[in-house]
Amino acid sequence: MPTDIKKILAGDQLAGARLIRQLEDGDPSGMAGLKTIFAHTGKAFIVGITGPAGSGKSTLVSHMITECRRRDLKVAVVAVDPSSARTGGAFLGDRLRMGQHAKDNGVFIRSMATRGHVGGLSTTTREVVLVLDAMGYDMVMIETVGVGQDEVEVAEFAHTTIVVSLPGAGDDIQALKAGLLEIGDVYVVNKGDLPGADNEVARLKSMLQMGQKGEGSWSAPVLITVAVKGEGISAVVDACWHHRQHLRDRGLFQKHSEQQTLDLFQRLVMDLVGDKIFNDSHASAAYQTLLEDVKNRKIDVVTAAEHLVKNLHVII
Amino acid sequence: MPTDIKKILAGDQLAGARLIRQLEDGDPSGMAGLKTIFAHTGKAFIVGITGPAGSGKSTLVSHMITECRRRDLKVAVVAVDPSSARTGGAFLGDRLRMGQHAKDNGVFIRSMATRGHVGGLSTTTREVVLVLDAMGYDMVMIETVGVGQDEVEVAEFAHTTIVVSLPGAGDDIQALKAGLLEIGDVYVVNKGDLPGADNEVARLKSMLQMGQKGEGSWSAPVLITVAVKGEGISAVVDACWHHRQHLRDRGLFQKHSEQQTLDLFQRLVMDLVGDKIFNDSHASAAYQTLLEDVKNRKIDVVTAAEHLVKNLHVII
Repeated sequence: MPTDIKKILAGDQLAGARLIRQLEDGDPSGMAGLKTIFAHTGKAFIVGITGPAGSGKSTLVSHMITECRRRDLKVAVVAVDPSSARTGGAFLGDRLRMGQHAKDNGVFIRSMATRGHVGGLSTTTREVVLVLDAMGYDMVMIETVGVGQDEVEVAEFAHTTIVVSLPGAGDDIQALKAGLLEIGDVYVVNKGDLPGADNEVARLKSMLQMGQKGEGSWSAPVLITVAVKGEGISAVVDACWHHRQHLRDRGLFQKHSEQQTLDLFQRLVMDLVGDKIFNDSHASAAYQTLLEDVKNRKIDVVTAAEHLVKNLHVII
Repeated sequence: MPTDIKKILAGDQLAGARLIRQLEDGDPSGMAGLKTIFAHTGKAFIVGITGPAGSGKSTLVSHMITECRRRDLKVAVVAVDPSSARTGGAFLGDRLRMGQHAKDNGVFIRSMATRGHVGGLSTTTREVVLVLDAMGYDMVMIETVGVGQDEVEVAEFAHTTIVVSLPGAGDDIQALKAGLLEIGDVYVVNKGDLPGADNEVARLKSMLQMGQKGEGSWSAPVLITVAVKGEGISAVVDACWHHRQHLRDRGLFQKHSEQQTLDLFQRLVMDLVGDKIFNDSHASAAYQTLLEDVKNRKIDVVTAAEHLVKNLHVII
């Protein structure tokens, strides 16, 4: 086993960060590293945290880290960073707030740029989480901003999803929140010392009740926090671990992890297949003619696609 | 040519809606229809409209329709609908506001559910736009809500992207807007009668100036509207058509359309390939063993993917 891999499995943050960087850069050593660590993954508890900008997610996450450390749990955070070259800034402030954990070897915080995306799960998030899993973090939190397809993706990927909201927000935020009501396992009304917090809790509870899924199913709690004061954090961490136990008792934790592995497998297959088809064909004159004919609408796009795939054979 | 296709090419809304429904449902007649109409596409001007919820996009769109009709342009709108079974409602109100165009055969409005997504471009949006293109609409507007990967996707797909914002919004909205500053070709500050509209325009202009791309490149205008009163709408429609002319003068309109066709081609190829690989392999015992081995981490996920793709051959 290469020294670097040994270091990663021992939780060495420098070695872990190097592999993560290689995966993000599409460096072939990244995939080679992933092969070696894969057998050591599948243990981490993956928690997604989502909610509108301004709801105080980063502060909540920072206090959750402190609470987990108190419980002697190793924690990693992947913050999917919506900042961009031109307009970045807001997120840097969030990162600074997490500075207090910088010297704790049981904590690993990683911001991932989304390269043209504004929020959500970047392409390599799954691979990065595998690295953190192999490094021995008990809990990996994925923090995202915004609402959209991305959040649904995070919720599908995580074992447990926390949806953060805040009291008395305007209509625009209410509309944003509506879409999140189907993906949460734990709801947190942060800034709970603002007026209207109890109303917000009641509103969420009644909306959740409408969607009740019957006996034995998980009933998502609605919790109040004041993250800046560290209030209510312990209950949030408890709720996550209760949900984890709920999944384990029903064999769903294992099932979920298997599904994630299969999803990654399919994505890797499709990536490789895409490369193979489009790169291998590229030099072919017949392929170039096909492309020209599609562009000029001499052949329709569906027939052209069918034609290409017709000549493709898989033997397994 | 089947009667239905003739009707679609003549702009028959009932026939068009039927083909759209078939495409959304994954009905094989949808793909068959797409084949027949494809040669008649590539003419429509595609305009994306995005911005935070509450910025008044739907009202703006409704007035833009009126303005386009005044200019004798046929207009279609695809509203990507974030409502869901459980929490739907807000968007229905928006649709009702568009009711005034219901009896105009030169206007076609279609809401698309995003099936688990909260906003953005649904999988069949490109195909639906092709149908509207074949039906002879001069301009197809795609209206989305939220910010995220989805919006970037819409911006790439559209010839011209309008980013709508509003004055004096809170920090949360400011953060949301930041991500949109790279994708707009036309900026609209709606609710321009609210205090702070001029500040908002100045702020946007100075942010845009920082990203100036040099001589001859498009300089995105920042316009003020009061959509509920129909003010400033004509200038927005003008700006879109100016941008279209800018693209045409540089051969970029054609180039953009070709790129969209190639993107659709690649996606159709990948869909077909995915079906072929995962469905065809499904019955194979060797494939099932491979999957089990990945699940149990006897083989790593990268090697397993490589193994599957190694046996795949494309002859063109």
